[in-house]
Amino acid sequence: MRLGLGQFNSVVGDMAANVEAMSRIYRQAMEKGIDLLVFPELAVCGYPPEDLLHKRHFLAANEKAVRDLAAKCPQKTIIVGFPQHYHSNTYNAAAVLQGGKVEAVYRKGLLPNYGIFDEGRYFRPGAEPVVFDIEGVRIALTICADIWTLEWMAEFFKNTIGIQLIVNISASPFHAGKIETRREVVADCAKRFKSAVCYCNLVGGQDELVFDGRSIIADPAGKVVAMAKAFEEDLLIADIEPKSKNKVVVSVPEKERSQPDDMTEEMYAALVLGTRDYTIKNGFKRVLIGLSGGIDSSLVAALAVDALGKEAVCGITMPSRFNSAETISDAGKLAENLGIEFYTVPIGEALDEFNSTLGKVGGWSSEGLAYENLQARIRGTILMSLSNQLGALVLTTGNKSETAVGYSTLYGDTAGGFAVIKDVYKTQVYRLAEYINQRAGKDLIPRDVITRIPSAELREHQKDTDSLPDYDILDEVLKGYIELDKSAKELIDEGLDEKIVKWVIRAVDRNEYKRRQSPPGVKITPKAFGKDRRMPIVNKYTSFGQ
Amino acid sequence: MRLGLGQFNSVVGDMAANVEAMSRIYRQAMEKGIDLLVFPELAVCGYPPEDLLHKRHFLAANEKAVRDLAAKCPQKTIIVGFPQHYHSNTYNAAAVLQGGKVEAVYRKGLLPNYGIFDEGRYFRPGAEPVVFDIEGVRIALTICADIWTLEWMAEFFKNTIGIQLIVNISASPFHAGKIETRREVVADCAKRFKSAVCYCNLVGGQDELVFDGRSIIADPAGKVVAMAKAFEEDLLIADIEPKSKNKVVVSVPEKERSQPDDMTEEMYAALVLGTRDYTIKNGFKRVLIGLSGGIDSSLVAALAVDALGKEAVCGITMPSRFNSAETISDAGKLAENLGIEFYTVPIGEALDEFNSTLGKVGGWSSEGLAYENLQARIRGTILMSLSNQLGALVLTTGNKSETAVGYSTLYGDTAGGFAVIKDVYKTQVYRLAEYINQRAGKDLIPRDVITRIPSAELREHQKDTDSLPDYDILDEVLKGYIELDKSAKELIDEGLDEKIVKWVIRAVDRNEYKRRQSPPGVKITPKAFGKDRRMPIVNKYTSFGQ
Repeated sequence: MRLGLGQFNSVVGDMAANVEAMSRIYRQAMEKGIDLLVFPELAVCGYPPEDLLHKRHFLAANEKAVRDLAAKCPQKTIIVGFPQHYHSNTYNAAAVLQGGKVEAVYRKGLLPNYGIFDEGRYFRPGAEPVVFDIEGVRIALTICADIWTLEWMAEFFKNTIGIQLIVNISASPFHAGKIETRREVVADCAKRFKSAVCYCNLVGGQDELVFDGRSIIADPAGKVVAMAKAFEEDLLIADIEPKSKNKVVVSVPEKERSQPDDMTEEMYAALVLGTRDYTIKNGFKRVLIGLSGGIDSSLVAALAVDALGKEAVCGITMPSRFNSAETISDAGKLAENLGIEFYTVPIGEALDEFNSTLGKVGGWSSEGLAYENLQARIRGTILMSLSNQLGALVLTTGNKSETAVGYSTLYGDTAGGFAVIKDVYKTQVYRLAEYINQRAGKDLIPRDVITRIPSAELREHQKDTDSLPDYDILDEVLKGYIELDKSAKELIDEGLDEKIVKWVIRAVDRNEYKRRQSPPGVKITPKAFGKDRRMPIVNKYTSFGQ
Repeated sequence: MRLGLGQFNSVVGDMAANVEAMSRIYRQAMEKGIDLLVFPELAVCGYPPEDLLHKRHFLAANEKAVRDLAAKCPQKTIIVGFPQHYHSNTYNAAAVLQGGKVEAVYRKGLLPNYGIFDEGRYFRPGAEPVVFDIEGVRIALTICADIWTLEWMAEFFKNTIGIQLIVNISASPFHAGKIETRREVVADCAKRFKSAVCYCNLVGGQDELVFDGRSIIADPAGKVVAMAKAFEEDLLIADIEPKSKNKVVVSVPEKERSQPDDMTEEMYAALVLGTRDYTIKNGFKRVLIGLSGGIDSSLVAALAVDALGKEAVCGITMPSRFNSAETISDAGKLAENLGIEFYTVPIGEALDEFNSTLGKVGGWSSEGLAYENLQARIRGTILMSLSNQLGALVLTTGNKSETAVGYSTLYGDTAGGFAVIKDVYKTQVYRLAEYINQRAGKDLIPRDVITRIPSAELREHQKDTDSLPDYDILDEVLKGYIELDKSAKELIDEGLDEKIVKWVIRAVDRNEYKRRQSPPGVKITPKAFGKDRRMPIVNKYTSFGQ
């Protein structure tokens, strides 16, 4: 029995295009002699469709799309994920298509409702296994989280005898290192049920999420025998041969796909795909980036060029008297290295004009935070004006470290449509910059940009460390506080400085309002700002107590 | 048996202050001879605490606060809501405090996971009823949603005999008209179980939610015999006397509380409380409002004065050459009527300066949308600069109709901390303005402001109807599309104009990105933008099909 996993880039809400993409893969699969072709979870409508699932007409359009797909793929067997509305309830379902019709429907049993997942909001859990034979192989269907809790699964399948292949359709969003967890989950499932497991994951960017593909096939001993491409569409093939009763042998006819070497390479690929898909799926052809000559905006520009091509990227540098000659020149050098369009729009005159206008209201001062933020807001206004005029999407350049502690100006440097590196800690920003240069075989991002002491350049002689702890310490506190929900006491007990820990925690808590109004960006850590972390703005709790 | 419902304004995360507030109410209750004092759902930590519930130290702090409250309230019996961490799970729980200790804990059985609710994300459902006797009255505990599904409740209590009083602790957020539903729920529950029901609701604003109090006491016949104050703290008292077996008689010793006359009055009160609490709980003493002389900003200013007092409100008018003499003068007149501080900061020179700066980049034009948005962004920058300098919160003035179709400028008129009327349709804006004038007994909001044809005044002779349908039609389409999830076809079948319906649907879908970056505001309709309506930004679905 030849199995194919059709991991593809599904677009949320575009059922016609998704059916078309799957029909195309189906035709390839038929040429390759595939008996069972598997598509990802909710592939028909894309993942996550969120509150589109509350629209009855949307659900009806999905049912129709599934019937269309069945009609277009009459040979062999297809498994595809779709939302099913049935007897007043909605299910996260998998359709079995055979002979041009929907032959069976499996409904997901375990609905994740944590992290970025809200499935309890939309779906009822299913209660019935779906098991069938193809070419002598006994197959059980599962969807995503179903195989992540083996105890539940064992109970669910307790009356089902002789499973030889577990098919799992998934929409598992990326974070760095998660592939190891997925490989373990698939391997453990195979071992537990002594059957082959095939795991078909989605590909593509959807708002803050990136799905990284890397569909997996494991043999009954729990060995991963094949993995599909990372961050790309792919059709992964395996042959599953029944041997003795309840036994199958898995072999892979095609050559192994190359995989990312390390987490930096994965993050890079996720940021590129996330940026490309957000831009293109929203109908933009060009992006604008404010280039300061600093490392954050340089990294974003380099990522944007890899995502969209250099013709699609335009850099704008907006110097004031607080910018050094070096940073201004580095912004130009970077643009030249990347081969992108580049404009210089000085903000000095607009700044002076605002300063005199604001001077008319009592209490205005041309020193201090308000005046610093004003510079960032003038830049934001320039970028957004050009965005409106030219129809280009503004990419913002704030990293996770500064987003966490609010070291940014709302409606200033946070102004834009997509915050490419909002989930990338500053220490990772450096690693990614080095990776990009290494990959290019030259200093695409000028060496000075990487080595210079970071500064927002909003006043004379400013350095980030005037306001912030050293980034390596800051990032350590942030990981503990944000990703692991540790208290001040726990962090201090681990040897971190009490004053720094308390300052960071206060800053993170106090800046929730800024993050709430910031654009989405690519999730690359286990817990990103956004749907992953839902904090109240009005919040008097300080994590100092215990 | 004397019962007291202590509806109070709990602050999220401020366990010490909440315990203090409850101790104060306890002392009043003891003076009034109360035997059973009931506080709302999650009163110890405020509602909704969101991802604070993922912090173990937060849960520990809550357990400690409950013990502190028990120690401070040793006489009689107290019921209070708190999050309980028990055997690796978290529950939405109610503690029974007696003799200075926690005597029993009830765990909520039905966890809402729709609309603004995410309880499935945090809590496990409880499985055990908690029933006890006080002064000869047999009491069963329930929490919020538990009583909204009577079939479930009947099953849950099937082995529990002789309940005479059902205590329900709630945190039920306001929307206009919801009180009728709540009264029905409580009455139906009383009738079904032939017992008295007391329903204790929270009061106060929390981010986008307002809790309106109006705790309810119903007798076993399902008659509502008492209701606590709306949008205010209150201690509602009733005497529950056991008569024959399973029978109680309910009487109310104090005089009836006056209640809002209609939905406009409720909405007004919700907007005032929501604005007051967001401002004060976030530590602000003053607010800034950009006054255009139009009805939206006039309404927001009047609401802000009622929320915070005239000394706390500052109006800034920022005219350009596109503003008429009438609107400029009306902005001043409004400020004078309200007695608030008022500044005029013309934007002409900043606009000219930006225009010449942007002219240096190819493609810039001083006509069209980009130039119109630029004016709004200059105003946003002025307001935010003054906000930073003066430490005042900017209130934005966009209504639900324009927020829905994106008739606003991101980082322009959407720039600010709290969007007071973001859930108020334009047709409701007029009703609220009339209500405020009627309440004041004079035209606090100048008559011209109410009667003038609406315009954004960003170009010569502009009217809202150049870009938008008439507001009465627009609002009808919006209600059908947003609140009822109807398709284009359903709306057209109801007699609405096809061209308008399709234009509105496209505009709503296309502007999700703007709403994602907008500040929170008070929810007053059944479905507000925000946690209530979670739509993808990348979304190719059009609701035109069926």
